[in-house]
Amino acid sequence: MFSQKVIENLSRSSWIRAMFEEGEKLRKIHGPDKVFDFTLGNPDPEPPKGVKEALNNLVLEEKPGMHRYMNNAGYPDVREKLANQIKQESGVEVTLENIIMTCGAAGGLNVVLKTILNPDDEVIIFAPFFAEYTFYIDNHGGKVVVVPTNMSTFEPDLEAFKNAITPRTKAVIINSPNNPTGVVYSEEVLKKMAEVLESKENEFSTTVFVISDEPYVKLVYDGVKVPSVLKIFKNSVVVNSYSKSLALPGERIGYIAVNPAIKDVALFTAGMIFCNRTLGYVNAPALFQKVIAEALDETVDAEIYRERRDMLYNHLTNLGFECIKPQGAFYLFPKSPIADDVEFIRRAVNYNLLLVPGKGFGCPGYFRISYCVSLETIKNSLPAFEALAKEFIK
Amino acid sequence: MFSQKVIENLSRSSWIRAMFEEGEKLRKIHGPDKVFDFTLGNPDPEPPKGVKEALNNLVLEEKPGMHRYMNNAGYPDVREKLANQIKQESGVEVTLENIIMTCGAAGGLNVVLKTILNPDDEVIIFAPFFAEYTFYIDNHGGKVVVVPTNMSTFEPDLEAFKNAITPRTKAVIINSPNNPTGVVYSEEVLKKMAEVLESKENEFSTTVFVISDEPYVKLVYDGVKVPSVLKIFKNSVVVNSYSKSLALPGERIGYIAVNPAIKDVALFTAGMIFCNRTLGYVNAPALFQKVIAEALDETVDAEIYRERRDMLYNHLTNLGFECIKPQGAFYLFPKSPIADDVEFIRRAVNYNLLLVPGKGFGCPGYFRISYCVSLETIKNSLPAFEALAKEFIK
Repeated sequence: MFSQKVIENLSRSSWIRAMFEEGEKLRKIHGPDKVFDFTLGNPDPEPPKGVKEALNNLVLEEKPGMHRYMNNAGYPDVREKLANQIKQESGVEVTLENIIMTCGAAGGLNVVLKTILNPDDEVIIFAPFFAEYTFYIDNHGGKVVVVPTNMSTFEPDLEAFKNAITPRTKAVIINSPNNPTGVVYSEEVLKKMAEVLESKENEFSTTVFVISDEPYVKLVYDGVKVPSVLKIFKNSVVVNSYSKSLALPGERIGYIAVNPAIKDVALFTAGMIFCNRTLGYVNAPALFQKVIAEALDETVDAEIYRERRDMLYNHLTNLGFECIKPQGAFYLFPKSPIADDVEFIRRAVNYNLLLVPGKGFGCPGYFRISYCVSLETIKNSLPAFEALAKEFIK
Repeated sequence: MFSQKVIENLSRSSWIRAMFEEGEKLRKIHGPDKVFDFTLGNPDPEPPKGVKEALNNLVLEEKPGMHRYMNNAGYPDVREKLANQIKQESGVEVTLENIIMTCGAAGGLNVVLKTILNPDDEVIIFAPFFAEYTFYIDNHGGKVVVVPTNMSTFEPDLEAFKNAITPRTKAVIINSPNNPTGVVYSEEVLKKMAEVLESKENEFSTTVFVISDEPYVKLVYDGVKVPSVLKIFKNSVVVNSYSKSLALPGERIGYIAVNPAIKDVALFTAGMIFCNRTLGYVNAPALFQKVIAEALDETVDAEIYRERRDMLYNHLTNLGFECIKPQGAFYLFPKSPIADDVEFIRRAVNYNLLLVPGKGFGCPGYFRISYCVSLETIKNSLPAFEALAKEFIK
């Protein structure tokens, strides 16, 4: 009666719902302040002041026609402003013709994949990965190829990457700063990846697109710089979102920026604009296109997240958890003290701690902590982590 | 290098771009007020006062968390209000559990189709049809089955409909008030369709979903009532949008309402919420969910469109064009005076008239006029239509 694939995928992800329901139950029993929910990547800070001002001004101004359809690629003036910013930041000659406004990064990724994938084309992702990638790739008939990362750095394993590329490889998705590890890929590793790709593209006479999913690019700590993917990879497409950097996830606003050096870039862009329309997004929400154009220099205060990271990271490593110190995003990805991460997560619920197993990111034996909760909540959760450590770590 | 299908579809629809570019060229030569562009269904009235007030109030109130993620189905309070309205209007016991907020009707249709289609399932649409349906169906592996309408009424041809239903038929899309004809399907025809469906479902032991795409349901004239699809068809799903009724097409806000009588309705809804997430919409834009909930009783003034319809309809029929008088939406769909509607449209450009050929709606020999332009522009265009008639009609 329904799509078999959808029903199967539903049941595969039903433990997330089960976890959510568990949380609701616990909140009812113990009170919401006694339950430490680290499961969701839903930014809790409010949008920066500049965003609120831009929104207020636009709404009060009531410019006629501001809620109408525009070009499926988005408003030209918004795309031009954005292109200038990207050009300045990357040094790549991006123009408005290379920009498509999208329904967040999720919409943008679907648009790119739909435009490039033929049946059974392969898309490489690196474990641990954001689990939604597997659905996005499957939506458009692609095959997911998972490549491991180096477990001591969570950066792509270059040898494994090289061996995974076949004549059917159409794209590689990279995500740095990374969800779930918080790791930022170094320029050195990215440049080596570019070399590997170039040699494989020559060997197979193919084009392999590097799709860079960058919603956390402005959320970095300790002065870390995120290398420009547009600069390093010729066949690169950046997909970005203001969900995290401007704390606007509910409003669904993001963009695609295409490297102008790609062969047939005009046809590629026309194809993506067509897919933005026919996949049913039609265009990125009108009002928030204008809002972000007025607030391009704004970012939520990354210090808020850094404080949380430090408190959690220091506490957990003191307790004996093994964990790479994140350089960006708002996640920690410690090693589970027992091999079975799902079992570990279940037992953590006994301490009112809600976590996500690494299995959900293609990386069993680890777990994810999302620090989209107040410093207060984190402080209150520390004894719970301590009790958990006592149970599992000698 | 790119998806072959996307590139093919792009080139098939390139004449629309050509027409748009033609229009731009003409506007530059003759001035925008001398070019009569009837191609786009982009509502030109401003949103009703109640919508603007709701938007202003919500933005000024600045409720914390108003831009965050919510349930992928949308805000429960918004869904509850909407469910109550639908229940009142249809008499069907719809609850918030049957409502999913979507990225417009285009997003909603993709979500429904993705959730029900298995490879090579068939979806029936009636010609003339909104051309995007063919892409939406294809996005999710479905096969388009086109059934003709009765050319004297543009209502579904019941005999042809009956013969088109096979064991692989998974859904029927209906669109009333219709784009491009403006026709409202009568209760009599809909009830006969329901009988046909029930007998075929029994014969084949299948479920056939009736997907009702209703963006124009509030834009009707002369006191016409649009029969409730939820009431008439058991396996019905309504997809709606505020693009036309509240003149908010750029903001991408709509919904899916599922008939609670559908077998396994909870699983169906869970599947659709999953698809709303994984197709990359994630959730309907947050702010405009709240806006429409505050403005559920608002509609743009249909009188604006009725005046335009009357002026165009009267003028064209006086000139000898054959045309069914539309009861809703903002389109006229007259017969082309020559068999080749594309050629007719090309020749109309000589009079600075921009129209859309019926071919684009699966109905050659006709053309579409969208009256999303001011009464002033329509008045100014009348001599051009007269000259066109002189060339083609004896």
